[in-house]
Amino acid sequence: MGSLGDLGGRAKAAAQALAGAGTAAKDAALHAAADVLVRRVGDVLDANGRDLDAAKAAGVTGAVVDRLRLDPARVEAMADGLRKVAALPDPVGEVLEGWVRPNGLRISRVRVPLGVVGVIYENRPNVTSDAAALCVKAGNAAFLRGSSGALNSNQAISACLREGMAKAGLPEDAVVLVEDTSRESAVEFMRLRDHIDCLVPRGGRSLIETILAHATVPYVIDGDGNCHVYVHASADLDMAQAIVVNGKTQRPGVCNAAESLLVDAAVAESFLPRVSAALEGVELVGDERARSIVPTIGVATSDDFSTEFLDLKMSVAVVDDLDGAIDHIRRHGSGHTEAIVTTELAAADRFTREVDAAAVVVNASTRFTDGEQFGFGAEIGISTQKLHARGPMGLRELTTTKYVVIGEGQVRQ
Amino acid sequence: MGSLGDLGGRAKAAAQALAGAGTAAKDAALHAAADVLVRRVGDVLDANGRDLDAAKAAGVTGAVVDRLRLDPARVEAMADGLRKVAALPDPVGEVLEGWVRPNGLRISRVRVPLGVVGVIYENRPNVTSDAAALCVKAGNAAFLRGSSGALNSNQAISACLREGMAKAGLPEDAVVLVEDTSRESAVEFMRLRDHIDCLVPRGGRSLIETILAHATVPYVIDGDGNCHVYVHASADLDMAQAIVVNGKTQRPGVCNAAESLLVDAAVAESFLPRVSAALEGVELVGDERARSIVPTIGVATSDDFSTEFLDLKMSVAVVDDLDGAIDHIRRHGSGHTEAIVTTELAAADRFTREVDAAAVVVNASTRFTDGEQFGFGAEIGISTQKLHARGPMGLRELTTTKYVVIGEGQVRQ
Repeated sequence: MGSLGDLGGRAKAAAQALAGAGTAAKDAALHAAADVLVRRVGDVLDANGRDLDAAKAAGVTGAVVDRLRLDPARVEAMADGLRKVAALPDPVGEVLEGWVRPNGLRISRVRVPLGVVGVIYENRPNVTSDAAALCVKAGNAAFLRGSSGALNSNQAISACLREGMAKAGLPEDAVVLVEDTSRESAVEFMRLRDHIDCLVPRGGRSLIETILAHATVPYVIDGDGNCHVYVHASADLDMAQAIVVNGKTQRPGVCNAAESLLVDAAVAESFLPRVSAALEGVELVGDERARSIVPTIGVATSDDFSTEFLDLKMSVAVVDDLDGAIDHIRRHGSGHTEAIVTTELAAADRFTREVDAAAVVVNASTRFTDGEQFGFGAEIGISTQKLHARGPMGLRELTTTKYVVIGEGQVRQ
Repeated sequence: MGSLGDLGGRAKAAAQALAGAGTAAKDAALHAAADVLVRRVGDVLDANGRDLDAAKAAGVTGAVVDRLRLDPARVEAMADGLRKVAALPDPVGEVLEGWVRPNGLRISRVRVPLGVVGVIYENRPNVTSDAAALCVKAGNAAFLRGSSGALNSNQAISACLREGMAKAGLPEDAVVLVEDTSRESAVEFMRLRDHIDCLVPRGGRSLIETILAHATVPYVIDGDGNCHVYVHASADLDMAQAIVVNGKTQRPGVCNAAESLLVDAAVAESFLPRVSAALEGVELVGDERARSIVPTIGVATSDDFSTEFLDLKMSVAVVDDLDGAIDHIRRHGSGHTEAIVTTELAAADRFTREVDAAAVVVNASTRFTDGEQFGFGAEIGISTQKLHARGPMGLRELTTTKYVVIGEGQVRQ
């Protein structure tokens, strides 16, 4: 499709058209894209088959192949995702605030699209349509760079999306896929300051490191979740156990899974044995105090307390009190989601105030930090940074604002 | 004061205390700092004298020396600035929104401090107190790195501020000044990801280039203002002239000054001669169409249309119509402030919708894009980027948010 700069220029031009497109036009385009995707399911599955064959030939293992694999139900789910995003409220045009200055100037702050949103992502081909849907609904062009292993699938999916855009009268370059999946191209992509208004990386630590080292475009980091559950001395221990087990085991491979358990010394002797039994199948590693109560807990290295296991493994520490828990989280947390289980109002208040994270949770599972669970309808990621967006990012986080200033000839004195 | 990492660690620890400090404590600290500054005016002026002597010895020229120079009135103005920020509403703790999910989870989004705000700035020593005041009021530690030429002044001012913090019971490390002003130290500063939550650079293009090349901390760019005034065919030409003259000449050296004049062909013959006369003392450079009407206008190079002159110089182009103006601004604008003068509602609407800038202005001077003028009380800069903050940045832009999720034992199914 041409050089990266050419592709970026096309996305930029499309973004200008999208910024002026009404809600009805954008929704129609998303529905048209869904229809094309369903009609072309055969093409998409053929392309996906080529990616799967290549993966198997390269000796790629089970979980990665599973994330890559599409089937008719998964393609249908992608189409449903497009329709669902079409049904969400359009964030563009919202007037966030407005006021009149003493000199009569009327100032308002209006929500507008970002422009071109770049997305770098790893193997899962459904991100192609999920990310494009959110970008387009928020009035942005989606400039997508998937991985080489999913290139055939991504090409087939983006072709469907582009056909849908065109059918509804939007520019097909509302969705632009980068087909050069070399590392050099990734670095060039993250330096396209003239063409990318916001970069959303969806990948692991090495992608984040590459972005920190090379990116010059603005970006929002979707980082690690080393999420803690802290069981306060006053906790309902049945509730605490349910929250720990759910946080750790309901879906261990995601960023809002619980990775570390902190228990107040006052309840450690009663709670640790029962929660260890309930966490059967989970490898527990702990500090000395935890191991003195439950000897089957392994020895935790100091690294373990800072590690996002993304697996059936959990670190355990006994803390003296709320201060000890807050201090532990300050040292080891990644600023994603931190939960306390308590019945004491003052403990809940201090924890939510003093713990510095995208989400602080009282008496619920860490697994709720999620755009769907928060009610945003969909999410493009979960920001662990503090600028622009913090926590689950939905349509709103894919916009910016502009000030509109209306006068009657005012000049400054 | 120790290595940069040590300084950052101290700022981080102070930030934790500041995040929990109430409004009254922060306001008292700002008043105490103002009092110390006024009492120690002699020390501050002595230190400033040493900087001025060094500048003169190095052959530094008039305008730079003027920005560096303090006198009793300027120190008093710095103290007044601290008191004025103390009087502003505290942004921390504001509940921006809140809702209840079908499963009973109560979610709210609460405004919280960023943490440590790094500020890199050039010669003007008043930035030391202005930036510190805004950071502290928003609950952040101010981690300041001024220029070598103002180091003595900055040390004296920050000593006063730190003493004020301590007097009011806040950590003196709420204000930390970097005393190593080498270029290597600047680069190290912008890579302190463990210690800086947001970097606000206040400087010219070379500082911005250094940040793009080296920074790994999150930053908000306060960039160029290549601001246009577009005179639509329907404009009241008296109003247009007043707006152009004010935008260009009221204070030419600032980012919201007008740099480029666009005039509809339909009114160019009547407007250009009179505005050229009114802009006496301003060097005008223009395109062929402008020069054919006013031959004294110089030849504009294509670079001129993309240049922020920051001086009594202005580029001039004649455009066919609104589309021509929007297209010209798209190619040459820097996304800061763009103004239209018109009496036609449809033209105002299209201009404000289609021009992509931090501020779009109808029938007023570009000079109003400013924290004070917008009513924010003070500003730490004007963002020309689209993420986090766009346009004038006041106290609110020095905060982030966190989600507080309150449950009664909910777990995910």
